[in-house]
Amino acid sequence: MPEFLTLLPPKEALDKWFSAFEAGKLENEDVQLLQAPGRVTSKPVIAAHDLPEFHRSAMDGYAVQARDTYGASEGLPSYLNVVGEVPMGAIPAFTLKTNQAALIHTGGMIPEGADSVVMLENTQTTRQGEIEVYQPVTANENVILKGEDIHQGQEVIPAGVRLRHAEIGGLAALGFQMVSVAKRPRIGLISSGDEVIPVDKTPLPGQVRDVNEYTLSVLIEQKGGIPIHYGIIPDNPEKLRGAINKAILENDAVLITAGSSASTRDLTSTIIQKAGKPGVLVHGVNVRPGKPTILAVCDSIPVIGLPGNPVSALVIATLFVSPMIERLMGIKQTRPSGPISARLKVNISSMAGREDWIPVKMEELQNEYQVDPIFFKSNLIFNLASADGLMRIPPAVTGFSAGEIVNIYPI
Amino acid sequence: MPEFLTLLPPKEALDKWFSAFEAGKLENEDVQLLQAPGRVTSKPVIAAHDLPEFHRSAMDGYAVQARDTYGASEGLPSYLNVVGEVPMGAIPAFTLKTNQAALIHTGGMIPEGADSVVMLENTQTTRQGEIEVYQPVTANENVILKGEDIHQGQEVIPAGVRLRHAEIGGLAALGFQMVSVAKRPRIGLISSGDEVIPVDKTPLPGQVRDVNEYTLSVLIEQKGGIPIHYGIIPDNPEKLRGAINKAILENDAVLITAGSSASTRDLTSTIIQKAGKPGVLVHGVNVRPGKPTILAVCDSIPVIGLPGNPVSALVIATLFVSPMIERLMGIKQTRPSGPISARLKVNISSMAGREDWIPVKMEELQNEYQVDPIFFKSNLIFNLASADGLMRIPPAVTGFSAGEIVNIYPI
Repeated sequence: MPEFLTLLPPKEALDKWFSAFEAGKLENEDVQLLQAPGRVTSKPVIAAHDLPEFHRSAMDGYAVQARDTYGASEGLPSYLNVVGEVPMGAIPAFTLKTNQAALIHTGGMIPEGADSVVMLENTQTTRQGEIEVYQPVTANENVILKGEDIHQGQEVIPAGVRLRHAEIGGLAALGFQMVSVAKRPRIGLISSGDEVIPVDKTPLPGQVRDVNEYTLSVLIEQKGGIPIHYGIIPDNPEKLRGAINKAILENDAVLITAGSSASTRDLTSTIIQKAGKPGVLVHGVNVRPGKPTILAVCDSIPVIGLPGNPVSALVIATLFVSPMIERLMGIKQTRPSGPISARLKVNISSMAGREDWIPVKMEELQNEYQVDPIFFKSNLIFNLASADGLMRIPPAVTGFSAGEIVNIYPI
Repeated sequence: MPEFLTLLPPKEALDKWFSAFEAGKLENEDVQLLQAPGRVTSKPVIAAHDLPEFHRSAMDGYAVQARDTYGASEGLPSYLNVVGEVPMGAIPAFTLKTNQAALIHTGGMIPEGADSVVMLENTQTTRQGEIEVYQPVTANENVILKGEDIHQGQEVIPAGVRLRHAEIGGLAALGFQMVSVAKRPRIGLISSGDEVIPVDKTPLPGQVRDVNEYTLSVLIEQKGGIPIHYGIIPDNPEKLRGAINKAILENDAVLITAGSSASTRDLTSTIIQKAGKPGVLVHGVNVRPGKPTILAVCDSIPVIGLPGNPVSALVIATLFVSPMIERLMGIKQTRPSGPISARLKVNISSMAGREDWIPVKMEELQNEYQVDPIFFKSNLIFNLASADGLMRIPPAVTGFSAGEIVNIYPI
């Protein structure tokens, strides 16, 4: 395949792929708030009312009229008459007049007539029903005004935001029961390779279990997609073509893990190329592991051919499938989740021009992370399972020395 | 409360709390592999067979007898007779003899008689059925031996590991259908405060919706727990005592969010103190936000009193509830997920001796993250919703200057 000879860097490959299919084109649905974490807003959320909905105290103390405290000091306190206590969760039954104060708790409603709150520690009870105030307050001091946090009609969550606990809490504060989110994208999963057998079967000599179906399934669900399983297709052009065409019709994106032989990979590429326009955009990425990656779009459905090796497949899925799912869901901005800085314990070399991703173990020592690459011959999935993260060696770098600070991405 | 005067640093408070209840004491259950991500292994996983289960090729090339290639070079290649192609997923039907080679693909089974693989690029077909080999190989070169990755009886995943895609893949490779994990802990959730109303009700003046039930519920589920809802209990000693005692009997841990007034918090502390031995261990932590936190153990059930303010409750839940759930589930070692290094854009001050957690926005600029604290008056949940993470200011630090590198923890 001639495409294989011009290996694109991962970032360029991703950009080329992304420019060929539309972002955020999934349908929307309304879901219950507690079912919404991880989902992505399909339209901006607008506040239906102010927050807070009433002037409320930011402190435990006394609601007062600020001008009654002007000039108050330890030597010359203001004396105020305590006319009551503001009940939590209800309108105070009194109106505050000049030279009066009312006990108030954090979150309590500022009584009519009061304009500020003196902190408890700046007061002292002199006798029943009377306090001394030692420090002056200004109008609105220790008060959160109605609408100060959020005003009615304000956009509180934009479209394209993946909802976390904090956003769910914000929606709850405004009384939303439901939120409009992008539907979960259906991601078709096809495995190929004559040597590959289902996980629940016992391999005969020469056979291996289909690890990728499981690892990719977990990754797809984590990112918010629904994995749709098409099983293992033998290295037969007719059957593979049938499965790929069917999956393209039935899903929002399609993943195909190739068998480990070069001929299977080429077969996969040829079939994808004919499955829809524009077809294969990238065949071969300058990254290790994962060089034989295929990025395609067939009739507006993104299709990716992943290496058959489980570690390669999972690294490439992290680099390409995760952002692809986020693009489908319409995520506008990904929140940073890494990298973590760590100090490398050994020398490590890399080929100039190629981006390397190396599984590492991390250890917290002397207030920093120390990091040890996991080297292995066979890209066994258990090597990745024993890793805390992946170290990135950028294309322009030919290696790192022991003691250098490197970037680790959690897995 | 006298305890309130001696504020413990967060780390010491956590250690004191953890020393008072047992780790990993949940019952176990067997779950399907694809339902297991996020769950925690309750016992070590032992390999039932070798991986790989046969000598397999690590490369595309030719299976050979290494000694037939000794001394081979471009000038003086070895000539070998090609006797066949190793089929993927099956035992080769032939035995390799001296001066013979067999085409083999990555993952293919090494034929009887062969001991190594010559990479395709170090060979050339001279005529039908004959190749030239330009580079010698040594015995076992480009071969992954049976059991080289994993040998039968080996511990492949220890107890106390939270399962990710890679571990699920490893289990699939070994043919496991089920895995033994700790049961999900039941976490009782009690809200208190006369001003607090359910999210689906419309607040009267002075009332606020129960944001914490939602944010904490999401956090508990994310960490692997099951939130059990006890609703909102009014500031009434009898009712609060009843709810707390019931929740302690019915759950593996109990969370109580206090109303925002000091009197409610004190009431909560008094009730927890009497709910079981040893009772309240920590009342007040030297952290902002979240100072009025209560850490207790009642008859071996961890109980935590959280501040009523939603931002404080969520920060404290991140610092205390998340690790508590992980302890209950028996997690032996938490995988690093932060901090992320970022450059501070403004000066920020903090009180010596107190640990501060400040919501921040992050922006990727010139190959680094730049970070802007979000300052606010009222600890509104939407301020946290607009944040990318929390910046930690350690107790020993009195602030950071603009341009300094700081630690950000994703939320």
